Amino acid sequence: MLCLKSATEAAWLERAIADTPALLIDHAHCERKAATQALTLLAEYPEHLELVAPVVAIAHEELEHFETVCGLLAARGLTPEPQAPTGYQSGLFKKVRKAEPDRLIDRLLVAALIEARSCERFKILSERHPDPELRAVFRDLLVSEARHHADFVRLAESQADRVTVHERLRHLAEVEVRAIERAKPLPRIHS
Amino acid sequence: MLCLKSATEAAWLERAIADTPALLIDHAHCERKAATQALTLLAEYPEHLELVAPVVAIAHEELEHFETVCGLLAARGLTPEPQAPTGYQSGLFKKVRKAEPDRLIDRLLVAALIEARSCERFKILSERHPDPELRAVFRDLLVSEARHHADFVRLAESQADRVTVHERLRHLAEVEVRAIERAKPLPRIHS
Repeated sequence: MLCLKSATEAAWLERAIADTPALLIDHAHCERKAATQALTLLAEYPEHLELVAPVVAIAHEELEHFETVCGLLAARGLTPEPQAPTGYQSGLFKKVRKAEPDRLIDRLLVAALIEARSCERFKILSERHPDPELRAVFRDLLVSEARHHADFVRLAESQADRVTVHERLRHLAEVEVRAIERAKPLPRIHS
Repeated sequence: MLCLKSATEAAWLERAIADTPALLIDHAHCERKAATQALTLLAEYPEHLELVAPVVAIAHEELEHFETVCGLLAARGLTPEPQAPTGYQSGLFKKVRKAEPDRLIDRLLVAALIEARSCERFKILSERHPDPELRAVFRDLLVSEARHHADFVRLAESQADRVTVHERLRHLAEVEVRAIERAKPLPRIHS
């Protein structure tokens, strides 16, 4: 699905259902962090004006999702708190190449892979979480995640030739499998 | 104007007019950084769910302004590049108190003061910059900056009693005067 090289195991869904409050709090953090990372990308590449409109559009949507999830938390009496990282994102980011334009391409492809994994997991939650309100929320959100995945891949394609970019995407998708396997088994979107 | 304790000197406008490309590039950075700082505030205070809706609304508007200014840069063949800081923001942030809830109140009031100074300077540019297109852009933007100023003051008021908050605002406004006086004399919004 969406270029991912592994399917999520049943144990992940069991953890997510067993501690749904922690999963939702993590989800709020994920949406906020996705918006922040979009802005960080623009800060690091100010000369790439062609990135501004598509990446700002993604940031707007992540902020809308963040607000939706925070509304869900408030309605359920849940208070977001800081959470320890699982190591998933750092496992991916440490494989980003240093020299340009490779670094920019990798940053875009890593963002695409994170969106892909979110989408895969939102789909599972939308079909199999016992709470019908949450199933509906995740069903609404997964469409945007799939679109963001495609947006980031397309932006990467605009920085180099398509064959090279997709070869690199396949390589980073293998890295993503190891990162998700090694992530701490916490009730999180990416664990 | 808007609680500021000093009016901008004529020399600032002369610098801004003399290097308008640098001013516009700085302006793009300012809008992006304002959105980033709004998200940083939410990241530092995840338990303050009451901040989410108003601060996300501000971040959306800053992103819209960022895109507007980047469009202006592209139309004028200007390429944004990294710029050295003037010391204005660090001059303000170093006066933020460490203990809570003082820290949160100060973070909100510092944000309010930066918006106020932007608003004052956008007003000068909207009236006195020789370029009519830029006068119109700054006129459009200064209304939002004034509203953001009021939003941040109101959020600070919600964290403590009104009299204490306004006493602190007057103190930080004096700090802001020194920060803007000591900022490097570059063609920037806050210099």
